[in-house]
Amino acid sequence: MALSPAEPSPKQAAKPLLAVLNGERCDPPPMWMMRQAGRYLPEYRQLREQKGGFLDLVYDSDAAAEITLQPLRRFPQLDAAILFSDILIVPFAIGQNLTFVAGEGPRLTPPLVNAALDALTAYPARLDPIYETVRKVRAHLSPGKTLIGFAGSPWTVATYMVAGQGSREQGEARRLAYNDPGAFSAIIEKIEAVTFQYLCAQIEAGAEAVQLFDSWSGSLAPAEFEKWVIAPTARLVQRLRKECPNVPIIGFPKGAGGKLAAYARETKVSAVGLDETVDPAWANKQLPAGLPVQGNLDPLALLAGGEQLKDAVTRILDALAGRPHIFNLGHGILQETPIAHVEELIAAVKGDK
Amino acid sequence: MALSPAEPSPKQAAKPLLAVLNGERCDPPPMWMMRQAGRYLPEYRQLREQKGGFLDLVYDSDAAAEITLQPLRRFPQLDAAILFSDILIVPFAIGQNLTFVAGEGPRLTPPLVNAALDALTAYPARLDPIYETVRKVRAHLSPGKTLIGFAGSPWTVATYMVAGQGSREQGEARRLAYNDPGAFSAIIEKIEAVTFQYLCAQIEAGAEAVQLFDSWSGSLAPAEFEKWVIAPTARLVQRLRKECPNVPIIGFPKGAGGKLAAYARETKVSAVGLDETVDPAWANKQLPAGLPVQGNLDPLALLAGGEQLKDAVTRILDALAGRPHIFNLGHGILQETPIAHVEELIAAVKGDK
Repeated sequence: MALSPAEPSPKQAAKPLLAVLNGERCDPPPMWMMRQAGRYLPEYRQLREQKGGFLDLVYDSDAAAEITLQPLRRFPQLDAAILFSDILIVPFAIGQNLTFVAGEGPRLTPPLVNAALDALTAYPARLDPIYETVRKVRAHLSPGKTLIGFAGSPWTVATYMVAGQGSREQGEARRLAYNDPGAFSAIIEKIEAVTFQYLCAQIEAGAEAVQLFDSWSGSLAPAEFEKWVIAPTARLVQRLRKECPNVPIIGFPKGAGGKLAAYARETKVSAVGLDETVDPAWANKQLPAGLPVQGNLDPLALLAGGEQLKDAVTRILDALAGRPHIFNLGHGILQETPIAHVEELIAAVKGDK
Repeated sequence: MALSPAEPSPKQAAKPLLAVLNGERCDPPPMWMMRQAGRYLPEYRQLREQKGGFLDLVYDSDAAAEITLQPLRRFPQLDAAILFSDILIVPFAIGQNLTFVAGEGPRLTPPLVNAALDALTAYPARLDPIYETVRKVRAHLSPGKTLIGFAGSPWTVATYMVAGQGSREQGEARRLAYNDPGAFSAIIEKIEAVTFQYLCAQIEAGAEAVQLFDSWSGSLAPAEFEKWVIAPTARLVQRLRKECPNVPIIGFPKGAGGKLAAYARETKVSAVGLDETVDPAWANKQLPAGLPVQGNLDPLALLAGGEQLKDAVTRILDALAGRPHIFNLGHGILQETPIAHVEELIAAVKGDK
């Protein structure tokens, strides 16, 4: 008996990644890799040598669009492009100065640990080039591929705004949150408001799904996690749903550990990203039935390659066979990763199916 | 109706901490604080100024015993002393050289990332002064107080032995484990064997319970966590149980997140420590019924003090009211912590009961 045209097989979905985010299963699963546009790619390194520093590339929307598309040219089986940008564009628009110090990472000045939030002068136009990148990528994206926009979560962005840089266990932000919850709350709400505008505008420019990176959610005590991760994310999700009801939101609370299910239930994100430390079989049991998940190969397993890479892929595919699943890493791809290992990974996930 | 003398109220246990580790509930719970012997105490800082560096203190068993006892003199309501020592004494005995660089932390040379394990010359006598400290502490410990010995878990100790120092996300050890599981396994087994001897000798010298610190278990992918955290810990627990059947073993897999219940079930530790990021209500549901737990106040909540400290204590006490519980921090006390806040904490836990 032939399938009726009204019931296409999931693998024929026009955009498999969007189909999964909308609750379908696809076999093989759609896949992309966090930081897939980046330094492990020779074509990226070449462009970077020509064009200057990281922030120069982000603000050159032709270059940023080109970089966003590079991994899909090299690996046509990837199902999504993710905007080449940085989560710290939001504090830059809120009015902190942003620089990237080679070998040391980002610097935001003045750090809010010793400056008042309302002393900053907002520069919303600092977001405009990002939207231009989104438009350019969308215009060049192959059919079947999904364009993912993103922002940092309010908590993770706040950790940088308070410390002025990456910080050991996010101590500065966590202290401010305990010692002056009013001041910290104002910072979170400011980020939340700008992020809402920012994601709406990315969607208007062509992003078809968005991801909220909560890279530092892992350091918070449970009551603080409720206040500073779950509550702001839930508010943001609610506002985005109202404004753009058809755009799925992937929440990625890295390090949430045992608080993952509470995060998924209470924020009502469309899908949840699993970092590489999460046992996918455990997550499958803990998370609401049918909730799409994304993840969660250890980038070090990809770096190592070989049989253990294949085994790791199989374990993840098997554990998540019962729910909508987007294959991804559990953390960004490492710059030392051989291209050949990425090819092995794609073959292992996509197979001959 | 009077209680029969054969059924003492749990609060009258001769050693409340040991009673809880043996599965009883005590009300109020016994308590101690990780790093309670340390830099937040003026009497420790004074001794350190007189006597030299950290390692000098560890190897001066009179000083180490004095430091171990200091917090119990200042806070007589604490229920346990924990040996003043360091988890890196084991690699020192295995034959790496150990130094503490001021402001930078420990250095082990040669790092095993580029040296062979069997090129090291073992110095088991480097462990002897530690046993002397245990004997001295035990001789001076008040009745009712419990002396806790400790070691690092094989995985956590291996991360330092491989990298030669603390390392970002334990990348060196995790890579070696993927790239050369045979070589890594040999390191783990060596640590396991020395740690078994070390803990047995601490127990013989007077330690009444032991804690295995797995400070870096949080960075491992689930299959690696099974191989390098759970399996070696399970073997160690089994051997210790056989040798010293009455000595409880507290496992503290910091950052284990969703893998906590698997750790508890599979290692068969006597009690499990919860780090500050664990929701104790969630842990209470996930962990085997009746398993004693220890934890898990955020050291930053103690640093901040005030009403939120009291609230945080209440949340933990309430969440764990249904099982044997040792009150503790979820991580070491911070050196900036005011003594007055520790007094507030003890009053909040011990109350007027």
